[in-house]
Amino acid sequence: MAQKWEEIAAAKRAELAEQIPPEYRIPQHLVPPASQLDVTKFPRESGWFSQTELEITESTATSIVGKIATRTWTSEEVTKAFCKRAAAAQQLTNCLSEIFFDEAVAIAKALDEHLRTTGKLVGPLHGLPISLKDNFNIVGKDSTVGFSSLVRKPAPYNATLVEILENAGAVRYVKTNVPTAMMIAESVNNVFGRTVNPLNRNLTSGGSSGGESALIAFGGSPLGVGTDIGGSLRIPAACTGIFTLRPSLGRFTTQRCASGLAGQEAVASVNGPMAKSLEDMILFAKTVVDSQPWLVDPKCLPIPWRAVEHKKKLKLAVLWSDGMVVPTPPVTRALKETVEKLKEAGHEIVEWDPVLHPQALKLLGEMFVADGGKSVEALLAPTDEPIRPEMIMYKEATELGVHAMWQLHLERSELQKKCLDQWMSYEGLDAILAPTTPFSSVAHSGFNYVGYTGVWNVVDYSCVSFPTGVFADKNKDKAIVNHTPLSDWCKDINSAYEPDLVDGMPVSLQLIAKRLEEEKVLAMTGTVLQALKPS
Amino acid sequence: MAQKWEEIAAAKRAELAEQIPPEYRIPQHLVPPASQLDVTKFPRESGWFSQTELEITESTATSIVGKIATRTWTSEEVTKAFCKRAAAAQQLTNCLSEIFFDEAVAIAKALDEHLRTTGKLVGPLHGLPISLKDNFNIVGKDSTVGFSSLVRKPAPYNATLVEILENAGAVRYVKTNVPTAMMIAESVNNVFGRTVNPLNRNLTSGGSSGGESALIAFGGSPLGVGTDIGGSLRIPAACTGIFTLRPSLGRFTTQRCASGLAGQEAVASVNGPMAKSLEDMILFAKTVVDSQPWLVDPKCLPIPWRAVEHKKKLKLAVLWSDGMVVPTPPVTRALKETVEKLKEAGHEIVEWDPVLHPQALKLLGEMFVADGGKSVEALLAPTDEPIRPEMIMYKEATELGVHAMWQLHLERSELQKKCLDQWMSYEGLDAILAPTTPFSSVAHSGFNYVGYTGVWNVVDYSCVSFPTGVFADKNKDKAIVNHTPLSDWCKDINSAYEPDLVDGMPVSLQLIAKRLEEEKVLAMTGTVLQALKPS
Repeated sequence: MAQKWEEIAAAKRAELAEQIPPEYRIPQHLVPPASQLDVTKFPRESGWFSQTELEITESTATSIVGKIATRTWTSEEVTKAFCKRAAAAQQLTNCLSEIFFDEAVAIAKALDEHLRTTGKLVGPLHGLPISLKDNFNIVGKDSTVGFSSLVRKPAPYNATLVEILENAGAVRYVKTNVPTAMMIAESVNNVFGRTVNPLNRNLTSGGSSGGESALIAFGGSPLGVGTDIGGSLRIPAACTGIFTLRPSLGRFTTQRCASGLAGQEAVASVNGPMAKSLEDMILFAKTVVDSQPWLVDPKCLPIPWRAVEHKKKLKLAVLWSDGMVVPTPPVTRALKETVEKLKEAGHEIVEWDPVLHPQALKLLGEMFVADGGKSVEALLAPTDEPIRPEMIMYKEATELGVHAMWQLHLERSELQKKCLDQWMSYEGLDAILAPTTPFSSVAHSGFNYVGYTGVWNVVDYSCVSFPTGVFADKNKDKAIVNHTPLSDWCKDINSAYEPDLVDGMPVSLQLIAKRLEEEKVLAMTGTVLQALKPS
Repeated sequence: MAQKWEEIAAAKRAELAEQIPPEYRIPQHLVPPASQLDVTKFPRESGWFSQTELEITESTATSIVGKIATRTWTSEEVTKAFCKRAAAAQQLTNCLSEIFFDEAVAIAKALDEHLRTTGKLVGPLHGLPISLKDNFNIVGKDSTVGFSSLVRKPAPYNATLVEILENAGAVRYVKTNVPTAMMIAESVNNVFGRTVNPLNRNLTSGGSSGGESALIAFGGSPLGVGTDIGGSLRIPAACTGIFTLRPSLGRFTTQRCASGLAGQEAVASVNGPMAKSLEDMILFAKTVVDSQPWLVDPKCLPIPWRAVEHKKKLKLAVLWSDGMVVPTPPVTRALKETVEKLKEAGHEIVEWDPVLHPQALKLLGEMFVADGGKSVEALLAPTDEPIRPEMIMYKEATELGVHAMWQLHLERSELQKKCLDQWMSYEGLDAILAPTTPFSSVAHSGFNYVGYTGVWNVVDYSCVSFPTGVFADKNKDKAIVNHTPLSDWCKDINSAYEPDLVDGMPVSLQLIAKRLEEEKVLAMTGTVLQALKPS
């Protein structure tokens, strides 16, 4: 007899809770009340973390690998500090899906021993704990991607990226929560439930890499890896004020990862890093590319890490609105303030015309449901798990035949051509500066629009989402009066906007470069951040 | 009232014949009899060509651009010489589909004028006539790809590659014949009929780029461009003893070309050069890549032309048989003689295990007909054109749904992974040396097996097909006695083998490098040719 999905899910959750050792369970008297929305200050204010634990878990990945390399810290103490803080993150935000602290500490000890005895690092990530989105397969661990039918189906192999990171010296210790099939812009599913935003637990940490974003924003991971097919790296990064790089297909391997839409290729899902600093994006990207992933993954491109010239004066096209949804006031203000500072720093600002965005967004939606939702249904059926309301389009979709799919490919290819032509028509354009999402963050169940991110998936451009240093401010960011909505989405989003709700939340923007310009978009982000620095 | 397909086809053929100006029509008394099988000596033996015309049309593309650059020859005289020889090729092998000599001569004159007045070349192909496979769109010209429904449907735009070549100084003057939908390994269709092999008109010039191969082998073009989705560059190149490069997707643009299976993406169709010398392959490849096609075609990869180190000692894996079809005796002898010479030259020879080839070939077939033949049917229906017997699988196929297609993608991706792993398991492997086809060439309607080429399309590897200098010899290449066939294909092919029929035909082999190793496979071909030179 198959177990009911509720029972399977409850058992899995209980098992996950058990995997937190007693010493990492927050003492009852220290647990913040449910009414405490911002829990990011808990580690520092609770007194439950040592000074060293705080120092370690508040360092960037780059700084940590430096201190391990110089033997200031051991990987063991670093790993234990992150295990403890990740355990706290789980208890306060429900951000994890798999926990394996003991294995992590054993690996960390072995790396310490290696360094002690040989004096050598195994690679550029020697000793660094790295968190992984749930869909990264690890031998013996589940990759449920939110489906009860995938509980207790341990992976028979490692995702290729997991092996590359381990070969570079990384220490894996947790996997992080996702929405069902990784196809919702928040992180909620019927197995693990909902991940909340550690900056404000009434708000979403985004999705689908929202377990990662919550964990990292809380300080429970120095560097995580997520995925992005419509915004799944950038949305959660923006909701929590951290950095991410959405690469083009072929730079970082996606091989042997679990997927909710396995075999779907019309729009590429890609993997990328999430962390609190730009330099950590570069550390990850260079490490992965330097490992020559094209020798192990046939979809990876033999493009080595390329040095880029830092341009002093960038030409940037600003996207104020995509013509379908006017961003909420904090986002528009962040964009304005950023543009002002960029102009002051001497950069050239033009405007991006979103003429192709509606068609791109339409295509994205059609490509996701082209199988008539059969892939999702096949993962729900074994346990009679109901489809979540956020995914109703998969239930309502009609499967296309291959001939109709080929016509969709043609339409998408023509759109890609038009987008490139539009880009080239702005002579010397370096990047587009755009909102990552219309929100700073948003209340649970409110993330209903992925147009600002998804368009760039359709054309497979390389993007960085970065925090601007601007925070939503209820006094500055009043609701738009006499708003004339551009669409139903626009109406819903702007009428749901409440200045009080998001007050204090960080606002991120995206910098978008052309396809396969990862090195360039990272370098340009550095230039933009330089312009944003308080003078 | 729609015209019947026969009438449309007859009118198109008459129009094509009309496009040959009277001075380029072979005088009746010089026309070789139908019984004369080898017509390649016609230009030199007929007396109809001047010494300069012969010298020009028997030069390589590289040599021609050199002589135009130094003003030894004008583009006008070069172009006229090739127009005349192409006209003869058409009359003797039926290799063309579009003819526009006047336009070509006008362009050539303008290029000459440019050079005269500025002292500058417009690009590396300045003044060079280039022939194009029928599917390369040119404004105002048909691209019928063998369908009567596409007659008198002039293209509204140029293929991107056509523009790149023109910007580099190339002069277009003809398009060349293909099979229906470019999906037969010979060049026969209901509009233009059949192209024959100028080396032996009883034999096929291969397909689908068999108009190109016949034209080039006859001397009617110094450099042509074809396409390859299952062997369509390599098969015709091998049937006529010329060179070709099948690149991986993303090096040379395929944008805005006509296709019989438009929108099909599971296996990539790619474009590549065909010519009589290896250096011409390099001229073409470097010219196209140096034009930065990724700035105009979003599917092109920003990989500049890469210098490669010439390795003195290669490690090559020989494919003696793919486990499904034993090559006919001339091919096996050419492979043996080549391997012997490579060993003598100090190269390391191992054997390639074709363990993955049956599954790859099965997948290729499934991907071609995944739309249930609807694309082909949609091109036949408007004129009630009957499907050709060679394409019956398109009629018999059942359309897949997108969900089933996604499963096929997964199977193909897993195969690609296994193939790469197999390659890497041969430590330091540089290339695979394999038959291009089981035939030297074959009688019309006899080309029934694309396994030797198609497998490499499934994994998207870069391949060169090159003539070995070995020719089929009825005295040496006796039919195999007591042949135990590996498959029905093997039985058909080896029982149809007649030493007399193919006597004297050149035999080609393939050198296969990994994905996106175009520069390397070209350089290695040079090394192999060096070893094959008579000492």
